[in-house]
Amino acid sequence: MNYAGTHLILDLFGAQNLDNVDCVRDALVQASEVIGATILEVHAHKFQPQGVTGVALLAESHVSIHTWPEKQYAAIDVFVCGNLNPEKAIEVFKTTFQPTNVQCVEIKRGITV
Amino acid sequence: MNYAGTHLILDLFGAQNLDNVDCVRDALVQASEVIGATILEVHAHKFQPQGVTGVALLAESHVSIHTWPEKQYAAIDVFVCGNLNPEKAIEVFKTTFQPTNVQCVEIKRGITV
Repeated sequence: MNYAGTHLILDLFGAQNLDNVDCVRDALVQASEVIGATILEVHAHKFQPQGVTGVALLAESHVSIHTWPEKQYAAIDVFVCGNLNPEKAIEVFKTTFQPTNVQCVEIKRGITV
Repeated sequence: MNYAGTHLILDLFGAQNLDNVDCVRDALVQASEVIGATILEVHAHKFQPQGVTGVALLAESHVSIHTWPEKQYAAIDVFVCGNLNPEKAIEVFKTTFQPTNVQCVEIKRGITV
């Protein structure tokens, strides 16, 4: 199968540390590093009264984290092109956010014959 | 249904203007504006020999565009929380990138009972 990239869609439920912008920023960096991606930029914002949103822009696409502390929920995307394996990042998110439940869907993007 | 956000996954085939970083940046801004989102930051990078990657970080999550000019392909994500309708952004991408084929999948993220 010929495709442009692999997109991992992660939903973390029952998670912790979701209102900590440093945790989110560190998770973006660690996840990018563990999959062997090249980071172009990392940005993370803390909202009031709660919530954090952040993205690591990669030479190989992106990692994004958006958190809803009031729901103990985080929406995470790991999108990488080439032969990188985004699944390696899952352990980083489990360690950082300690979810009780993780839902994971992988999509191959840009499939061509 | 109670959910955290709506995630539109768009794949554009047979597309144009994919190696133009200004087009990508403008599309990120216009798409964010047309859906009524609040832009925190916009970043776009041009790769050599080809390709552009960019993201608009929003108060309501993000819009991302990654292009493969050699495949005439772009992977676009529009992820917004609350009551915003990401489908309004599709026309911006059609106008900017003139794709011959658009594949679209919408996912509700963070569904809770």
